[in-house]
Amino acid sequence: VSADKPRIPNDEEIRRITTRAVEEIVPYDEFISGLKSGRTLRIKMGFDPTRPVITLGWAVGIRKLRQLQDLGHTVVVIIGDWTARIGDPSGKSETRPMLNEEEVTANANAILEQFYRILDPARTEVRRQTEWFDDFSLTDVIRLAARFTVAQLLERDDFAQRFDARQPIGIHELMYPLLQGYDSVAIESDVEFGGTDQKFNILVGRELQRQLAMKAGPVGQGQAVLLVPLIPGLDGHRKMSQSFDNYIALDDPPHEMYGKVMSLPDHLIFTYFETLTDIPDEEVAAIAASVDARSENPMDHKKRLAREIVTQFHSAVEAEGAEEHFVRTFSEGEISEELAVEVPADQLPLADNDQSGDGYTVKLPALLAGQGAAASASEARRLIQQRAVEIDGDVVTVAIATVRVGSTLRVGKHRFLRIVEAIA
Amino acid sequence: VSADKPRIPNDEEIRRITTRAVEEIVPYDEFISGLKSGRTLRIKMGFDPTRPVITLGWAVGIRKLRQLQDLGHTVVVIIGDWTARIGDPSGKSETRPMLNEEEVTANANAILEQFYRILDPARTEVRRQTEWFDDFSLTDVIRLAARFTVAQLLERDDFAQRFDARQPIGIHELMYPLLQGYDSVAIESDVEFGGTDQKFNILVGRELQRQLAMKAGPVGQGQAVLLVPLIPGLDGHRKMSQSFDNYIALDDPPHEMYGKVMSLPDHLIFTYFETLTDIPDEEVAAIAASVDARSENPMDHKKRLAREIVTQFHSAVEAEGAEEHFVRTFSEGEISEELAVEVPADQLPLADNDQSGDGYTVKLPALLAGQGAAASASEARRLIQQRAVEIDGDVVTVAIATVRVGSTLRVGKHRFLRIVEAIA
Repeated sequence: VSADKPRIPNDEEIRRITTRAVEEIVPYDEFISGLKSGRTLRIKMGFDPTRPVITLGWAVGIRKLRQLQDLGHTVVVIIGDWTARIGDPSGKSETRPMLNEEEVTANANAILEQFYRILDPARTEVRRQTEWFDDFSLTDVIRLAARFTVAQLLERDDFAQRFDARQPIGIHELMYPLLQGYDSVAIESDVEFGGTDQKFNILVGRELQRQLAMKAGPVGQGQAVLLVPLIPGLDGHRKMSQSFDNYIALDDPPHEMYGKVMSLPDHLIFTYFETLTDIPDEEVAAIAASVDARSENPMDHKKRLAREIVTQFHSAVEAEGAEEHFVRTFSEGEISEELAVEVPADQLPLADNDQSGDGYTVKLPALLAGQGAAASASEARRLIQQRAVEIDGDVVTVAIATVRVGSTLRVGKHRFLRIVEAIA
Repeated sequence: VSADKPRIPNDEEIRRITTRAVEEIVPYDEFISGLKSGRTLRIKMGFDPTRPVITLGWAVGIRKLRQLQDLGHTVVVIIGDWTARIGDPSGKSETRPMLNEEEVTANANAILEQFYRILDPARTEVRRQTEWFDDFSLTDVIRLAARFTVAQLLERDDFAQRFDARQPIGIHELMYPLLQGYDSVAIESDVEFGGTDQKFNILVGRELQRQLAMKAGPVGQGQAVLLVPLIPGLDGHRKMSQSFDNYIALDDPPHEMYGKVMSLPDHLIFTYFETLTDIPDEEVAAIAASVDARSENPMDHKKRLAREIVTQFHSAVEAEGAEEHFVRTFSEGEISEELAVEVPADQLPLADNDQSGDGYTVKLPALLAGQGAAASASEARRLIQQRAVEIDGDVVTVAIATVRVGSTLRVGKHRFLRIVEAIA
C-alpha cells in the first residue's frame, strides 16, 4: 500500500465526491475534516465471498472507493471468510450455503480480480476475517456481547419490524452486527463503506471503536459511515441482487452486458448514468429531461449508457463491437419488443374483480400510464383512439380489455409491455 | 461413581421425595417414570465458585440430592469455573469479581469439601465447565445462539420485566442460559436441579438436548427439572444469600451455627424444620401449629431446630456443647432480647405522615400484629392495656407512640422487636 500523503481535494471535488452516487455520510463534518486533514484514511469495505459474482450494484460503491483512492486514501477490503464458512446457522435460508475453505478462497480470489478492474491495487489492503475470528474464544465473545444491550440492537429497522411482527430473530443474528463491528476494531478503519441497509451495523463498529478508546475515524471519534445507493435491477423495481436474478455481472461478456443494459426499463436510465458513469451532471440531467418528455427515442440514450458501461468494464473496442452486434441482430421493432417492460400480473389495474374466467380485465389507460408507456391516462386514451395500441397484434379501440400472462402490448412504434407471472 | 443399579422407591418414598422441600418438578410424570425405570439417572447441579461459602439455603437442595443418591442415582456437580473467570463483563456489578484460576480452584475445593458433608462421594461426579468451554470457538457460539430466538429468551421473567421497564439487558446475558444449557448437553444430564429462579434456564437445557436429539432425560425427552425452594434468611424476608449477609454457612462453627438458628424469626421455624431436617411431617405440622397458636414458648422449638441442624452438619456432641454454651451465656430475657425481630424503619405502620421531627409515630397494634409479636391488633391493644408492652424500658399505655432506629419494644415476656435502618 502506497505511503504517499493524500491530496486534499478542492471544494468542487468534495461536492462531487460527497453528492453523486452517495446516499448519506455520517457524521458529514467529520468525513470532510478527514478529507481535508492530509491524513491517509483507512476505508473499510467488507464482502461476503459466498458467490463469486460481482454485480453492477456493487460497482456503484467500488467506483466511489476508487475516487477516494485517487486522492491517496487506502481501501481495506475485508473478505468475510469466517461468515461464509458459517453459512446461515438457522438452517432456514437456502440463499447462504456453508462453504469449505477452498471454495471460499476460490470465490474471494475471483471477486478480488473483479474488484481490481475498478480499484487501484497499490492502495488496496486485503484482510480476512479469519485472521481475528479463528482465535476468538468464548470469553472474547461474551466480553464483546456485554458492550451492547438487547434494546440497542432491536432498534435496527429490520429487527424492530420483525420483533413487532412477532417473527423470530435468532440470538446469533444479534451477534452479526457486533462481529462486523469488531472487524472495524481489528483493522482500525476510519471510514466504513456500505449500502444503505448497512448504516446500523456500521454505527455499531463506530460505537465499539469509541468504547475501546481507539483513535480511529477521520477525527479520532470512531469510523464515519459512507452509504451508497442500492440501484434497482433489470426488473426495474427490486434492488439489483443475485438473489433476484435481476443483475448485470461485472464479468458478463461484452455482448451480454450491452444487451442487458439495453433491456433496462426507461425510468432507470437516469439512475444508471448517475451512479455508473462519469458523464457530467448537466448532461445526465439533460438525458433525464429528454426521457421524461419523451422527446427522443429512449433507445438512443440506452445505447450510449450501454457503450459507456461496456467501455468501462471491458474496453471501447469491445463496446463498439457489442453495439454493432446488437444493431445487426435486431430490427428496431424487434429490439423494442425484446426489451418490453415486464408487468407482473398482480400489478395490473383491474376493471373487474371477477377473475374466475380466462385472463385479466384491465383498465388500459391506467396500465399504459402506470408503466410509462404513455405520459398520462388521457394520452393513453388518445393513443387508443388513434389505433396506436395493440394487444398480441390486434388493434384495441376500447379502454377496457382482457390480457393474459404472456400477452404483449404495443404502444406506438417503440413501447412494448409484456404481462408476466405475479411475483411470488 | 458406583455402577450399582438404583433401587426403585415405593409410593410412600416417592411421595416424600417429591413433596417435602420440593417446589416443582417438570415434567412430573417423566421424573416419576425415571425413578421407577431402574436406570441410573444423572442429576446435574451447577455452582458458581466465586465465593467459597455454602449456605444452609444450598443445603436444602443438596439434602434432596443425597436422598436420590441413596436410591443409587448419580449426582454430577458442575463447577462453573468458566463463568467465574469471566466475572460480570458488564462491569456494573460489584458482587461478581473476576477470579484467576488458582482462586477458582481453591474455592471449588473448599465448596466440594462442604458438599461432601451431605453428598455421597461414591455417587458424585465432578466436572468443570472449562472442559468444554475452553475450546469453544466463535463458530460453536454462533451455532448455539442460532437455536434460540430473542423472543424465547425474553420470556424469562426477569428479562421480560427489565425489557418492559426499559432497563438494559446485555446481549451476553442472553447467552448465559444457553451456556448453562450447553452444560447439560456436555454431561448428558437426565435431571437438572436448582432453585426456583432456575426453571427457565433448566428448560433451555432440556430444549437444547431435544434439538440435538440426545437420548438424555428420565424418558429420553430431555432433562427434567427439579426445583427446590429458596428459603428466607435470618432477616426473615429475603432469600438466604451471601449478598444479603443473612445466611448461616455450612462451615460456621457449632456455637455460631446454633446462635444463628436461635435468632430466626418465629415464622421461619416451620420452613427450616421442613426443609433442613428429617423430623417427620406430622411432628413438623404440630410444631407449626404450636407456634401459630403461641401455645408454647417458640424458643423451645428453636432450640430443637438448632440442635438438629448442628448435629447434622457437625455432630450430636457439638450440638449439645453449643446449646449448653448458649443457655449458660444468656438469661432467657437476654436471649429473647438478643433475638429481637428486626423491623426496618420503612416497614413501620405510620400514624402520621409528618416525619420531619424526631423518630416515627407508629400505630402500635398494627406494628405488633404485623410482626407476629401479637396474634392480632386487638390482642395487641389488650396487651397495651395490661401494661405488657414497653418501649426502651418504658411501659406504653396508648396505641400511638414514637419509636426511633435503635428502639427496642418488648411485648410480654419473650417477644422483642428492634427498629433498624430501612433496607436500602
